[in-house]
Amino acid sequence: MKLTILGCYAATPRTITNPTSQVLDIKNRLFLIDCGEGTQVQLRKNKIKFSKINHIFISHLHGDHFYGLVGLISTFMLLNRINDLHIYGPKGIKEVITLQLRLSNSWTNYNLFFHVLESKTSEIVYEDEKVIVTTIPLKHRIYTNGFLFREKIGDRPLNVEAVQSYKIDKCYYQNIKKGKDITLENGQLIENSKLTFDPIPTKSYAFCSDTIYDESIIPIIKEVDVLYHESTFLQQEEVLAEKTMHSTAKQAATIALKANVKNLVLGHYSTRYESIALFKEEAMSIFSEVLLADDTTCFEF
Amino acid sequence: MKLTILGCYAATPRTITNPTSQVLDIKNRLFLIDCGEGTQVQLRKNKIKFSKINHIFISHLHGDHFYGLVGLISTFMLLNRINDLHIYGPKGIKEVITLQLRLSNSWTNYNLFFHVLESKTSEIVYEDEKVIVTTIPLKHRIYTNGFLFREKIGDRPLNVEAVQSYKIDKCYYQNIKKGKDITLENGQLIENSKLTFDPIPTKSYAFCSDTIYDESIIPIIKEVDVLYHESTFLQQEEVLAEKTMHSTAKQAATIALKANVKNLVLGHYSTRYESIALFKEEAMSIFSEVLLADDTTCFEF
Repeated sequence: MKLTILGCYAATPRTITNPTSQVLDIKNRLFLIDCGEGTQVQLRKNKIKFSKINHIFISHLHGDHFYGLVGLISTFMLLNRINDLHIYGPKGIKEVITLQLRLSNSWTNYNLFFHVLESKTSEIVYEDEKVIVTTIPLKHRIYTNGFLFREKIGDRPLNVEAVQSYKIDKCYYQNIKKGKDITLENGQLIENSKLTFDPIPTKSYAFCSDTIYDESIIPIIKEVDVLYHESTFLQQEEVLAEKTMHSTAKQAATIALKANVKNLVLGHYSTRYESIALFKEEAMSIFSEVLLADDTTCFEF
Repeated sequence: MKLTILGCYAATPRTITNPTSQVLDIKNRLFLIDCGEGTQVQLRKNKIKFSKINHIFISHLHGDHFYGLVGLISTFMLLNRINDLHIYGPKGIKEVITLQLRLSNSWTNYNLFFHVLESKTSEIVYEDEKVIVTTIPLKHRIYTNGFLFREKIGDRPLNVEAVQSYKIDKCYYQNIKKGKDITLENGQLIENSKLTFDPIPTKSYAFCSDTIYDESIIPIIKEVDVLYHESTFLQQEEVLAEKTMHSTAKQAATIALKANVKNLVLGHYSTRYESIALFKEEAMSIFSEVLLADDTTCFEF
């Protein structure tokens, strides 16, 4: 599982910082998460193949999370994209994109599907044979979702030596890998655990930006491998964080601790601070496994 | 008169090239012309003060000319702008900007005025005591205007020696500077030309992007100091230029020649060519005073 940060700063794009966008590479699928202005240039800088992006998840309709989307959709047209493109985001997203395409008297030469999110409870928004994506309802000034990406538990690897010792016919292997017990021709029941190994542990990634400190997300993100949690402010701006419905680094770390996640990635920094190292310092007073997102950093988990 | 090119390439923003946007500094007014994605970052790179931009002219609603506008409007909010902001552009521009602000549950903390253009003939869109801006109707795939920025002819400078020799009272100076003749107390008529000098020549700038080769613009841009004319293609792509309703470098130069302008600035280059020097070479076979726009170049006239 690989996470590439295209942008992780709050508010306006600047010469050296970009608004929120990131690419999650999980089980060979590339998911684009949020798409602030300049995302398509950041994709180029990070040498990410445009044609590999088939699913875009938009957390909410504040500009620093989606103003780059319409440009990316247009660029896909110019690049003669063929693949379907799926966009998951709040109500209004279809309206604003289609209006802009209509005004430019153009339409996509590929299929563009909008999956409009309105639920206030967690729901599955994407699922294939290897990955499942669910929403994480967040509390922010407008309707906002985080997204939980989770690899599905794969088949149980066959214990080849064991199945051969019982002389089990190959036609049963598929069922065994799915976890089923086997009754031999002599009537003896062989438990699956004797025929297989435990499956390879699956990875999970929870993206939570933007949100006020909110413990109600903990059951959804419990024990994920990686939690990206916004930390717009430091604790000294706690009052401002609450007012603007953002979080502090300390609050992000508290959520990480209570949800017992493996790693916490911080991001969505206000640009008022001298150094983003301050965010890590503050978070580590609560939780030890803290990583700092920064534009064009790439994490492998 | 100073022209700063923020971006001058066609189609998609890339790591090294930006879509159309430029700033004209004329009589101490800063006019932003077009606003492709990334314009606000280009403004920062070129150290142009955001607060000095009060008027934005949008030629047409193709993404490479206006996808950066909503982000700039949002950034003005975050920067606590106070001044009114005026936006001049085609029908639909108000709808698309206000929809996006509404979806983010925000509104500007400054006055935002839209001046919606629909006329198919040239019209005055802006006028103050020193500058006048008129549209240049262009022929492109969608409704498009260029813009002609013209300094107004100022007062006639007083010939102080002459007025003193006639013992003319100071209370008449204002009228004389406006070009009026004077009758002395003895009844003698003094022609204005004896009392004043010719006014300082005024500058003019015509922005024409995007357009097919179209001689009907010539009467509007006749003898301007600077003509920016798009040259998306070279002449070898003449057929493609016509099909996409763009111009070649040779065609841009032909317009410059026939309109008898002083300088031609080329831009809106397709990125298919090895070097933009090819555009200059081609144009100079027709017209001698050719300048190449490039991102972050600045011309003083």
